[in-house]
Amino acid sequence: MMAAIEKAKILVEALPYIKKFYGKTIVIKYGGHAMTNQELKQAVMTDVVLMKYVGMNPVVVHGGGPEINTLLERLGKESSFIQGLRVTDRETMEVVEMVLVGKVNKEIVSLLHQQGGKAVGLSGKDGLLIEAQKKYLTPLNEEYDETKEVLEMGFVGEVARINPEIIETVVEKGYIPVVAPVGVGRDHESYNINADYVAASIAVALKADKLILLSDVEGIYGHFGDPSTLLSSVRLEEIPKLISCGVISGGMIPKVQCCQQAIQGGVSTAHILDGRTPHSILLEIFTDQGIGTMVQQ
Amino acid sequence: MMAAIEKAKILVEALPYIKKFYGKTIVIKYGGHAMTNQELKQAVMTDVVLMKYVGMNPVVVHGGGPEINTLLERLGKESSFIQGLRVTDRETMEVVEMVLVGKVNKEIVSLLHQQGGKAVGLSGKDGLLIEAQKKYLTPLNEEYDETKEVLEMGFVGEVARINPEIIETVVEKGYIPVVAPVGVGRDHESYNINADYVAASIAVALKADKLILLSDVEGIYGHFGDPSTLLSSVRLEEIPKLISCGVISGGMIPKVQCCQQAIQGGVSTAHILDGRTPHSILLEIFTDQGIGTMVQQ
Amino acid sequence: MMAAIEKAKILVEALPYIKKFYGKTIVIKYGGHAMTNQELKQAVMTDVVLMKYVGMNPVVVHGGGPEINTLLERLGKESSFIQGLRVTDRETMEVVEMVLVGKVNKEIVSLLHQQGGKAVGLSGKDGLLIEAQKKYLTPLNEEYDETKEVLEMGFVGEVARINPEIIETVVEKGYIPVVAPVGVGRDHESYNINADYVAASIAVALKADKLILLSDVEGIYGHFGDPSTLLSSVRLEEIPKLISCGVISGGMIPKVQCCQQAIQGGVSTAHILDGRTPHSILLEIFTDQGIGTMVQQ
Amino acid sequence: MMAAIEKAKILVEALPYIKKFYGKTIVIKYGGHAMTNQELKQAVMTDVVLMKYVGMNPVVVHGGGPEINTLLERLGKESSFIQGLRVTDRETMEVVEMVLVGKVNKEIVSLLHQQGGKAVGLSGKDGLLIEAQKKYLTPLNEEYDETKEVLEMGFVGEVARINPEIIETVVEKGYIPVVAPVGVGRDHESYNINADYVAASIAVALKADKLILLSDVEGIYGHFGDPSTLLSSVRLEEIPKLISCGVISGGMIPKVQCCQQAIQGGVSTAHILDGRTPHSILLEIFTDQGIGTMVQQ
Amino acid sequence: MMAAIEKAKILVEALPYIKKFYGKTIVIKYGGHAMTNQELKQAVMTDVVLMKYVGMNPVVVHGGGPEINTLLERLGKESSFIQGLRVTDRETMEVVEMVLVGKVNKEIVSLLHQQGGKAVGLSGKDGLLIEAQKKYLTPLNEEYDETKEVLEMGFVGEVARINPEIIETVVEKGYIPVVAPVGVGRDHESYNINADYVAASIAVALKADKLILLSDVEGIYGHFGDPSTLLSSVRLEEIPKLISCGVISGGMIPKVQCCQQAIQGGVSTAHILDGRTPHSILLEIFTDQGIGTMVQQ
Amino acid sequence: MMAAIEKAKILVEALPYIKKFYGKTIVIKYGGHAMTNQELKQAVMTDVVLMKYVGMNPVVVHGGGPEINTLLERLGKESSFIQGLRVTDRETMEVVEMVLVGKVNKEIVSLLHQQGGKAVGLSGKDGLLIEAQKKYLTPLNEEYDETKEVLEMGFVGEVARINPEIIETVVEKGYIPVVAPVGVGRDHESYNINADYVAASIAVALKADKLILLSDVEGIYGHFGDPSTLLSSVRLEEIPKLISCGVISGGMIPKVQCCQQAIQGGVSTAHILDGRTPHSILLEIFTDQGIGTMVQQ
Repeated sequence: MMAAIEKAKILVEALPYIKKFYGKTIVIKYGGHAMTNQELKQAVMTDVVLMKYVGMNPVVVHGGGPEINTLLERLGKESSFIQGLRVTDRETMEVVEMVLVGKVNKEIVSLLHQQGGKAVGLSGKDGLLIEAQKKYLTPLNEEYDETKEVLEMGFVGEVARINPEIIETVVEKGYIPVVAPVGVGRDHESYNINADYVAASIAVALKADKLILLSDVEGIYGHFGDPSTLLSSVRLEEIPKLISCGVISGGMIPKVQCCQQAIQGGVSTAHILDGRTPHSILLEIFTDQGIGTMVQQ
Repeated sequence: MMAAIEKAKILVEALPYIKKFYGKTIVIKYGGHAMTNQELKQAVMTDVVLMKYVGMNPVVVHGGGPEINTLLERLGKESSFIQGLRVTDRETMEVVEMVLVGKVNKEIVSLLHQQGGKAVGLSGKDGLLIEAQKKYLTPLNEEYDETKEVLEMGFVGEVARINPEIIETVVEKGYIPVVAPVGVGRDHESYNINADYVAASIAVALKADKLILLSDVEGIYGHFGDPSTLLSSVRLEEIPKLISCGVISGGMIPKVQCCQQAIQGGVSTAHILDGRTPHSILLEIFTDQGIGTMVQQ
Repeated sequence: MMAAIEKAKILVEALPYIKKFYGKTIVIKYGGHAMTNQELKQAVMTDVVLMKYVGMNPVVVHGGGPEINTLLERLGKESSFIQGLRVTDRETMEVVEMVLVGKVNKEIVSLLHQQGGKAVGLSGKDGLLIEAQKKYLTPLNEEYDETKEVLEMGFVGEVARINPEIIETVVEKGYIPVVAPVGVGRDHESYNINADYVAASIAVALKADKLILLSDVEGIYGHFGDPSTLLSSVRLEEIPKLISCGVISGGMIPKVQCCQQAIQGGVSTAHILDGRTPHSILLEIFTDQGIGTMVQQ
Repeated sequence: MMAAIEKAKILVEALPYIKKFYGKTIVIKYGGHAMTNQELKQAVMTDVVLMKYVGMNPVVVHGGGPEINTLLERLGKESSFIQGLRVTDRETMEVVEMVLVGKVNKEIVSLLHQQGGKAVGLSGKDGLLIEAQKKYLTPLNEEYDETKEVLEMGFVGEVARINPEIIETVVEKGYIPVVAPVGVGRDHESYNINADYVAASIAVALKADKLILLSDVEGIYGHFGDPSTLLSSVRLEEIPKLISCGVISGGMIPKVQCCQQAIQGGVSTAHILDGRTPHSILLEIFTDQGIGTMVQQ
Repeated sequence: MMAAIEKAKILVEALPYIKKFYGKTIVIKYGGHAMTNQELKQAVMTDVVLMKYVGMNPVVVHGGGPEINTLLERLGKESSFIQGLRVTDRETMEVVEMVLVGKVNKEIVSLLHQQGGKAVGLSGKDGLLIEAQKKYLTPLNEEYDETKEVLEMGFVGEVARINPEIIETVVEKGYIPVVAPVGVGRDHESYNINADYVAASIAVALKADKLILLSDVEGIYGHFGDPSTLLSSVRLEEIPKLISCGVISGGMIPKVQCCQQAIQGGVSTAHILDGRTPHSILLEIFTDQGIGTMVQQ
Repeated sequence: MMAAIEKAKILVEALPYIKKFYGKTIVIKYGGHAMTNQELKQAVMTDVVLMKYVGMNPVVVHGGGPEINTLLERLGKESSFIQGLRVTDRETMEVVEMVLVGKVNKEIVSLLHQQGGKAVGLSGKDGLLIEAQKKYLTPLNEEYDETKEVLEMGFVGEVARINPEIIETVVEKGYIPVVAPVGVGRDHESYNINADYVAASIAVALKADKLILLSDVEGIYGHFGDPSTLLSSVRLEEIPKLISCGVISGGMIPKVQCCQQAIQGGVSTAHILDGRTPHSILLEIFTDQGIGTMVQQ
C-alpha cells in the first residue's frame, strides 16, 4: 500500500508538466540506438503513447537505422559516401524507400498500436507532405569558386516545402502520425532526406512547441568527452561562438543547426537527448531540469 | 537520474489505466475526513485535476462537513434529529444552503483552480440541475400503520429528477463541475439532500462509468472491525444477504444502497473508498487491485 | 376583443425595439429597492426572461442588499466603515460570500426559473470569472503624502481581470448568467467587490451593447432634488464638468464613473435607472425616450 | 409614464405565449380580405415578423386574390368554372403563375422586409418544393358511374409530394419563407393548387405545431349566421357529424378538411381565423382563449 | 467499343479544366438567342448542371427576352424608348416583374431540375438581394449643362448594393441560384435593371472567378464584320483605346463595361460568348483556347 | 470548332452517370497488366482522379505485381507454392511488405498526385485498417479428414476485420486512399492477403456502391475462350450453377467469390473488368451497357 501511495504521488507530481504541454505539438526525431535496442524501442513507444493520452500531440519522424545497409549489402549494392552522405543512385533510392516506408515506418506504427495508441504511417509522398529538392554539396576545405561544379549526390534531397495538412487531418482524429523522411521532387522522383531536418521542418510547419532529437550522445559537452560539463541549455546567439571554438563540432554541428532552424521558425525549444537512456523523452518533459541539451531563443 | 527513470517508469505503468478510463465520466462524492484535513483536501483536488488532464471527466458532488453545525451553533440555532437526519426548518435550510453553496462549494472550486484545473460550482438550482421532493420518514421499529402520520422533517428532500444539461455544457468546455446537494422543489423551496444519493443520481443521469463514495471507512469488512477481512468486491445480488446477516449494517447500509442504485441505473462500478488514505481515488483508478470495496453487477 | 386588439398593437409597437437589440448583450446590475420589494423583484425577473426570449442576451450582476447586515448582526459581528466601505476581515468576508453566493444568487436563479427562463448562478470563482486585487484607499481630504500608509480595508477588492469564457459558455446554451460580485485574488483569497464595477467590467469584457444600473434614484437631476430637471442623456465629455459643478455628487459619482468606464471600454450606452419603477428595464429598452439617465460617448 | 408602464405589463403578459411557441413552426395561409386591405396587410406582415423575432418559425403560404382575375380580364381571357374551380388552360396557367409568383409573392416578400424581417419567396418549382399531380373532379350530384369521364379542369392540381428541404435551408438562416401555391408535375407542367391545401401539406411536411388559415369568416358558427354561436374548438371526431348536420357547409367544408388533414398528419392544432380582424394571428397566439375556431385531435 | 474509348479519352481531357475550376464561382448572364431557341436552351441548362456536378458553383442571371414585349403588346401597352432603354412606368414595371420573376425565372428553374440539378429562383427582392437606385440618363450629344434636367426613365434602375447572403445560403446546400434582374429601391419600389450589370455586380459580390455574358455575337472583332479578326483576349488597359478607335462600339460598349467593372471588382476573367453556338459555356471552360472574347487585367 | 462541340456533347452525355454516382463510394482493385504497362497505368490514374473530381469517392486497393518476385529473386530467395499461393516465411513476408507498402503503394500515390489528385497511401497497419488472421488451407482433391493437418502457409492471411475509420478520415478531407493488402494479426505479425479479398472486405465495410476488380480477362465467357459469349451480367443465385457446370473455373472462381462476398455484404454491384482496355473503369461507369461482367443480387 505504501508503494502504491508513493506511485500516486509520482503521478501527481507529473500534473504540472501535463498542464504545461496540454494540447501542444511535440515533434520527435526517432533514431540511433533507441531504434535497434528492443527495450529502448518499447520505452520510446510507451512514452509517445503516454504523451498522446495526456493531451499532447506527438509527431514521430524516424530515420532508417542500419536496415538500409543490411538490405543494400544483401543485394550486393555498394555505396560511396561524400561528406558522410551516401551517394544515392536510383536503385539505392528504391531500396532506401522500401526499407524506410515499407519496413521501419510500419514497424513503428505497429508498435504504437501494441502500446494502445492509434497511429498512421506517412511518407513524404502522402498528401505531398514533403516536397523535396536535390541537395547540392560544395567541395569542402576549398575557397568558394563558382567555376567548380557541385558534387553529384544523386537522390539526396532537402526539404523544399512541407504541406502539413495530412498530418493535421490525422492528428485531429486522434492518430499519432509517423513520418518516413522520403520527399518527392518536382521531377516526381523520390529523395532521401536527413530525418533531423525533416523533423525540424515539420515542427516549424506545425508550429510545434518542442522539437526533440533522439541521438546517441548525452548532449553538448562544454569540454569534449567530459560528461560533467554537459550544457543543459544553449541560446541561439551562443551557437556561432560554440561552433567556432570547437565546443560544437563534427556530427553535432548539423544537429544543432536543425535545432537552430526550428527555433528560428518559431518552435519554442529544441532538445538533443540521449536515446540510450530509457524514457529520455518523458524525463525531458516531466522534470524541471530536463535532460540533454536544450536550444532556445 | 536513477530516481527520475524510476518515476518515468511509474508514469508508464499508469498508461493502461489512462487508456481504460479515457473519455469516461467518474462521479466522486467528496466528504468526511478528506474535507477537513488540509493535506487530504489537497490530495483529492490534485487527483481530480489529474483525472481531468489525462482525459477522464470527473464530476464532484460534495457534502457539507462540520461547517453547517458551526454556523448553526454560532447563530444559537438548535437542531433536533430523527433517524440521524436533521429536522430542517426554513431558517436552518437557509443556513445549510449558504454554507454548502456559498462556502464549501466555492472553496472546492477555488482549490481546483489552484491545482491548475478549470472548475464551475453548481447548486441544484442552477439550470434546475436537481429537482427535489420532500422526503417522508415512516417511524422505525413499528408495524406499518397507515393511520399514523409520517414524520415531519421540514426541508429534507430526495432527488425527484436530474437535469444534467448544465453539467454536460460545462464538461464539454473543459470545466470540472462541482455540485452542492441542494435541490429545488415544485414548491420552489430549497431542499437539503443527502450528497451520496445526489452523486448516485447524477452518475446515472450522466451514464457515468464509475461512482466513487469517499468515506471515513476502509470499505466493507467481512467481520466487523477486522481490517484483514475487507471485501474488495461485492456483487449486487449478494447485497440483500450481506445486509440481513449484518455484515453491512448501520451507516454503511445507505452507502451500499447508493451504490446499488447507481449500478441498477447503468453505472459500471461503484466504490466505497477510504478518504483518509491520501490519493485514494488515484489508487482506485491506477491500480489493478484498486482499494476499498467495489460494488458491481 | 377591443382590449385584445389593443394589446396586440402594443406587442407590434415593441417590434422595432426587439429588432434593435436582437442578439445584443445587456448587462444589468440588479440591486437596491428592486431586490427587497417582492413585486418589483418579480417585475425585474420577468423583464429579464422576456429579454432572453425575444433574442437579447441579458447578464445579471447582483448586489447583496440588506441580507449581509442581517446575518452579520445575528452573528454579533460589528463592522466599521471607511469612506462608506465596510472594513472586511476574513470572518466578515466569509459571511458576505455565503450570503451573496449561497443565498441571494440562488434566489435570483430560482426566480428566473419560476418565470420560465433557464439560469445559472456564478460567483467570480467559477471559471475564475473575476480575478480580484486588494483595493487600497487613500485618506480623503488630505494632500497626497507618500509617507502616509494607505487605509487597510481587509478583503475589499477591485476587478483585476475578467475571464468571460464561462459566461459565454452558458449564454451560448441558452442560460441567463447571474453573477455574484465575489472575486478571487492571486493570494487565493475571496474579495468583496462593488457590484456596479463588476457589472461595468463584465459589460466591457463581453463587448456588451448596454449596461443598466438599477438604483434607487430616478437618474441625474440638473438641479438637486428637482425631478423636473432629470437629465435624460449625458455625454462622456460633460461628466468632469458636471462633477466639478456639483450636479453629480455623493453616491452618484461612483455610479457615473462605472458608466464612464463601460463606455470607454466599448459599451454603447450605460443607463442609471430607477429600480423603484416597475419594469423600468423594459421601459428603457422598449421606448424611444427611455427612462432614467443615459451615458454615452 | 403610466401609459408606458401599462405597455410594459402587456409585454410581460405575452411571455408565457412566447415561451409556449418558442422554436415552433407555424404555417399561415394568407388570403382573402387581409390581402386586399392595406391596413390589414400591414398588420399581418408585422404579426409575422414579430413571430419570427420572438423565436417562432412562421411560414407564409399565400393565395392570389383578385389580381389573377384583373389580369385575365385585361387580356380578354374568359374563364369557365366547375364546382367553383377555374378551368385552367395553359394560357390561363401562365397568367396565374405570373401573378402569384411574379407579383403577389414578391409584394409580400417586400412588405416583410419593410417590417424589418428577412424573407425569401418560393414557388413550388424552387427546389422542387411542391410536386403536383392533375386534379380530377367527378361530377357532383350523381351516383358514381365509372363509365363516366372525369371532368377536365386543365392545369388544376393537387399536392403529390412536398420536398421541404429548401424551406428548411432558408429558415435555418433566419429567413421567413413565402410560398406561392404553384406546383410542378411529373410532366414538367405548372399546376395551380388551392393554397389552403398547400399550407396544410407544408405544415405536415415541416412537422409544424400550428396551421392558421386566414379567411373572411369568424370561424364555424353553431347556428348559421349567428356570431354568438361561434365554436371556439372542434375535435377531429366531431367533424363528420358537423358536416352531415349542416353546421359545417359550403366553402367551410374544404377549409375544415384542410385542418383535418393537417391534424391527421401530426400538426397539433389548426385554426380558422377571421383575417378581417387586425392582428388576428397575434390574438390567436398571444391569448388564452384565442380567436376563431380551432381544430384539434 | 472504339467509340466508347474515344469518349473516355475526351472525359479524361476535361480533367485539367475540372481541377482548374473546382470550387470556383462562375456567374453566367443568360440571354439572347440562347433563351428562345429550344435546343440552345437545353444545351445551356445541361452545361450549367454539369458545371455544378463537377464541382463549380454556377450562378445564373437571366434577362427577359421577348416575352416582356409580348405581354405588353397583348395588354395594349405602348412603350417609348430613350437611348435604347424602355421608359418604364409603374404599370409597365409590374408587367416586367411578372414576366421576369413569374415566368422566365421559373421556367429556367424547372429546366435545371429536368436536367437533374437542384435550383432556386431568386428575384432581387428575396433576401434583399439587389438593392436598386433610380437610373438617371443625361441627354446625349450635348455638352454637360447642369441646368438641364436629367431624363425621366421611370422604374429603370441601377445596382446600389448586392446582399449576397441568400445566394451563399442556397449554394452551400447544393442549389443553383437563378436570379431575375429586378431590384428594390429604398422607396420600396421595384426597379428593372440591365441583367448584364446585375451579373457583373453579383460576380463581384460573390468574389467569382469568372463572369460569362452569353450574347448574340461571336465576341469583339478587330475589323467590323470580319469574323476572322475575332479578338480572343483583351486587357483592361486596352479598352479605352479600342472604344475610342471604334473597334468596340454600339451595343458592345456596355457589355465590355460590364466586364471591366467585374475585373476591377476582383473577378479574374470576364467573357463575351456567342450564345448561338451550342454548349459555348463548356467550350469556354473546357478548352485551352476558349471561345469568344475574354477580358482580363 | 466542330470537334470542340463534339467534345462538349460527350461531356454532356456523361452527366447522367455523374449524377448517378455522385457521392458514392467505389472500391477498385488495381492489379495485373494495368499495373505494368505505363500507358495503362496513366489511364487508370486519370480515371481515378476524374472520378474523385466529379464527386465519387474512389478507394484503390492494389496488388503487388511482379515486383515482389523481382526482389525475391535478386535476394536469391526461392519460394514454394501450394494451391497457387506462395508459402511465405518471415523473410519473404518482409520483402512482400517492403515492396507493397514502400514501393508499389507510394508509386501509385505519386502518380495520383501527378494527375492532380490528393492521395494517401495506407497499409493495413495504419489505424489498424486490416486485422488479419492466418489462412489455413486444407489439402485439395481429398475427402475431408479431420485428423489431417492443415497446410502450413506461413504469413498468408485472411481479413479478420476491417476498421475503416482511417479511410473515412482521409476521404472526408478530399484524399484518395490507396491501400496495400498487408494485414496485422493479433500476434502483431504482418500477413500478406489477397488484394481482391481486401478490396471486397473494404467495400463492405465502407458500404460502397460498387466494387471493381481490374483483371487480365474480359470477364466471364459463356463458352470458354469465345469472346462473343461474354456474360455482361450474372446474378448471385446463378453463380453456384455456373461454377458447377464449369463456366466459371480456375482463377475466375476466387474473383467471382470476392464479388459474391461484396454483394452479400451490401455492395450494389461488383464488376470484373479487363484492365488491358484503356480507361475500362470510365467505360464501366460512364456507359449504360458497361463493360466486362457485372455481378449483382
